[in-house]
Amino acid sequence: MDHRGRQRRLQTSLPTHRLDALLVTHLPNIFYLCGFSGSAGALVVTEAGSVFFTDGRYTDQARTEVQGAQFVIAPKAPLTAAAEWLTALRTKQGRGKVSHLRAGIEGEHMTVAARTQLAHTLPSKIRLREAPPLIERARMVKDAEEIQRIRAACLLGAGLFERALEVIRPGVKETEIAAEMEYRARKAGAEAMSFPTIIASGKRSALPHGRASDAGVPRRGFVVCDFGVILTRYCSDMTRTVHVGQPSAKTRGAYEAVKEAQQAAVDAVRPGVSVGEVDQIARKSLQNSGLGKYFTHSTGHGVGLEIHEAPRVAAGQTEVLQPGMVITVEPGIYIAGKWGVRIEDMVVVTERGCEVLTPTSKELVTI
Amino acid sequence: MDHRGRQRRLQTSLPTHRLDALLVTHLPNIFYLCGFSGSAGALVVTEAGSVFFTDGRYTDQARTEVQGAQFVIAPKAPLTAAAEWLTALRTKQGRGKVSHLRAGIEGEHMTVAARTQLAHTLPSKIRLREAPPLIERARMVKDAEEIQRIRAACLLGAGLFERALEVIRPGVKETEIAAEMEYRARKAGAEAMSFPTIIASGKRSALPHGRASDAGVPRRGFVVCDFGVILTRYCSDMTRTVHVGQPSAKTRGAYEAVKEAQQAAVDAVRPGVSVGEVDQIARKSLQNSGLGKYFTHSTGHGVGLEIHEAPRVAAGQTEVLQPGMVITVEPGIYIAGKWGVRIEDMVVVTERGCEVLTPTSKELVTI
Repeated sequence: MDHRGRQRRLQTSLPTHRLDALLVTHLPNIFYLCGFSGSAGALVVTEAGSVFFTDGRYTDQARTEVQGAQFVIAPKAPLTAAAEWLTALRTKQGRGKVSHLRAGIEGEHMTVAARTQLAHTLPSKIRLREAPPLIERARMVKDAEEIQRIRAACLLGAGLFERALEVIRPGVKETEIAAEMEYRARKAGAEAMSFPTIIASGKRSALPHGRASDAGVPRRGFVVCDFGVILTRYCSDMTRTVHVGQPSAKTRGAYEAVKEAQQAAVDAVRPGVSVGEVDQIARKSLQNSGLGKYFTHSTGHGVGLEIHEAPRVAAGQTEVLQPGMVITVEPGIYIAGKWGVRIEDMVVVTERGCEVLTPTSKELVTI
Repeated sequence: MDHRGRQRRLQTSLPTHRLDALLVTHLPNIFYLCGFSGSAGALVVTEAGSVFFTDGRYTDQARTEVQGAQFVIAPKAPLTAAAEWLTALRTKQGRGKVSHLRAGIEGEHMTVAARTQLAHTLPSKIRLREAPPLIERARMVKDAEEIQRIRAACLLGAGLFERALEVIRPGVKETEIAAEMEYRARKAGAEAMSFPTIIASGKRSALPHGRASDAGVPRRGFVVCDFGVILTRYCSDMTRTVHVGQPSAKTRGAYEAVKEAQQAAVDAVRPGVSVGEVDQIARKSLQNSGLGKYFTHSTGHGVGLEIHEAPRVAAGQTEVLQPGMVITVEPGIYIAGKWGVRIEDMVVVTERGCEVLTPTSKELVTI
C-alpha cells in the first residue's frame, strides 16, 4: 500500500483547508495512512511530516507496521501525547508569532468528551477546528491493491451463500444458518464477519435489519441473507433473498421487480454519474412497479476498510462516481408483518462503467 | 427488566445534576433504559417522562420493545426529531421565562460533529451540557435478571474453551481454533462473540491483543485464548492460557505467578473495596514474584451490555465495589518476542465477597 503517497497528498492539501496540522484519531484512517492496525493511537499530520503516537502495548506492532511516519511510544494516552507534541511544536515555531496554530480534528469520529479534554490540554495558541472528511474522501477511490483485496473478500463472501443454500430448510433456526456461514468464513481465512449476519426468514424478512434470531425458517416464505466478511482488512457485503416453497405470483412478481430495480441501478453506475442518480434509478424502477413506497432505505454505500463508508448512495447525494470507487447497490422492499426482499451486489466503478464484484446469480432460488 | 424503575431513578436524579433533560443517544444506554434494541434512536428523558424517537425502519420493533416511554416514528434523523421536540417543549414551558432549558448530552459517546449539528438545530434558549455518565453509573450495579443472563453467558463461554482444548495442536492455525470456538458459540445460541477472538500462540502470546491470525500453533509454547459471547444481549469474557509441550521450569513458574496474582485479586473483591485496591493486589503479587514490570495493562473492567463498561479496575481508580457489580480480573505478563500468560475470570460482587462466574479450572493445561 502506498502509505507515503497517501500521507503526502494529505499533507499537501492541509493549507487549502487552512489547517497547520490534522489530528487523526479514527483507527481505519490511521491504518489507511500509516498501516498501524492496533487499537490505540493518534497520528499528527503536518505539512512537514507525520508523527504517530501509541502506547507500550503496541511497541512491536508499531515498529513492524508504521510506514511514512515517525512513531513515539508514549507512557500516556496517545491523544494526550499528540497534544503535548503539538504544544511543543507551537512553542518552537511560534516565538514572536501572533497567529494561532490551527489543528484539525475528525469531528465525525472524536467524541465531545475527548474534544473537551484535548482543549484543556492545549494552550490557547492552538485552535481546534472540525476538519472536513479529507481522509474519508481519499478513501472513496480505491487503488489497485485495495480493489484486489475487496474482490477476494467478495469471492470468499459468495462462498458463504453457497453454504447457506445447503442449510436453509423449513424448521432450521436462523442462527444455525448464520453459524454454518460464519464457520465457512473462518475456515476460508476470513478475519471476521464485516457486520452481524442478517438471516431474516418469513415475516422477519420484512425487517431490513433482521439479525439472525432463534426463529425457525417457515415452510413457505422469503429468507433474506445479508452478510459479509473481512479479509486482509477489507470488507465484503452482499444480500440474496431465497424463497422456501413455491412463491405466489405476487411475491415472485415482487422479487422480479426488486431484481429489475437493482439491475437498472447497477447498469447506471459509471464515472460522471452522481450517487443520487443511481439511487433515483432504483427508486424510479420500483415506483414503476407500484412498489416504491415499500423501498424504505437508501440504495447503497461505499465499502472498504469499513463496511459503511463514503459515499452514501442515497436521494439527494451529489457525490459523482469516479473510477476506483466501490459501492453497494441494494434496493429492497418490505411489507410490514408479511415479507421482504432485498438484493445486493458490490460494484467497482471502472473507466467506462462498472464491474460487479459479487459473482452470485440473482435468479430467484426456491428451496 | 425494570425499565420503568431505571427511567424513574434517572428522572429523579436530573435536578441534582442541574439538568432539565437528558438526550440519550448511546444505544446500549437506550436499550438499558427502554428496551429498544434497534440501531437508530434517541431517547429524551425529562423529570415529567421520556420520549423515544426512531425512524420508519423500526416501527414494529419500537411498538414491541419500547417500555416506559412514548415513542415517535420520525421522518427524519432521530436526533433531529428529538431536538425539535425539545424546542417545542421549551416554547411551551418557557413563555415569559428567562432561564434556559439545560439539556444534557452524553459527551463520552456523542461525536463533535453530531453536537455541532444539534447545537445548530436548537434555539439559543436551550443550552447543551456534557452530562456526567449517569446511566453508566447505574449500569455498574446489575439486577438479578442481569446477573442471571451474565451467568448464562459465562457458562456458554466456558464451553468454548472445552472445544478449544480439543482443537489446539501443533500446526493448527489460530484462526481454525477460533472458527471451532465461534461455531460452537453460534450452535449453542450465542448472538455473537463479544469481541474478536484472541488466540495468540507461541511468540504471539506476548501480544496482549493478539487476535487469531494465520499463524500455526508451534510445537512448544503458550497459547492465550481470550474470548466471550453475547447471549440475550449480555457479554461474557474469559481468558485461559494453555501450554503446548512441556513448559520449562521458568515458564511454569511464570504461569503459577500469574495464577497466584489473579487469585489474590479475586479474593480481595468484596463490597467496600475500591477497584484500585483490587488492581494493586494483583500488581503487588506479580511484583513479589519479580514479574511486575511485565504486567503492562490494567487488572480488569466492568462487563454487561458492553464488553468494556464501568468501572475500570485500574491503578488509581477510586470506584468502590458494591453488591451486583460484575468485573473481570485478568492480570497477565508479556515478555516481548518470547511469550505471555493471562488468566481471566468474571466475578459478581456479593454481599460478603464475590462469586466467580467463570467455571473453568485455572490449573495449567499442557497439550
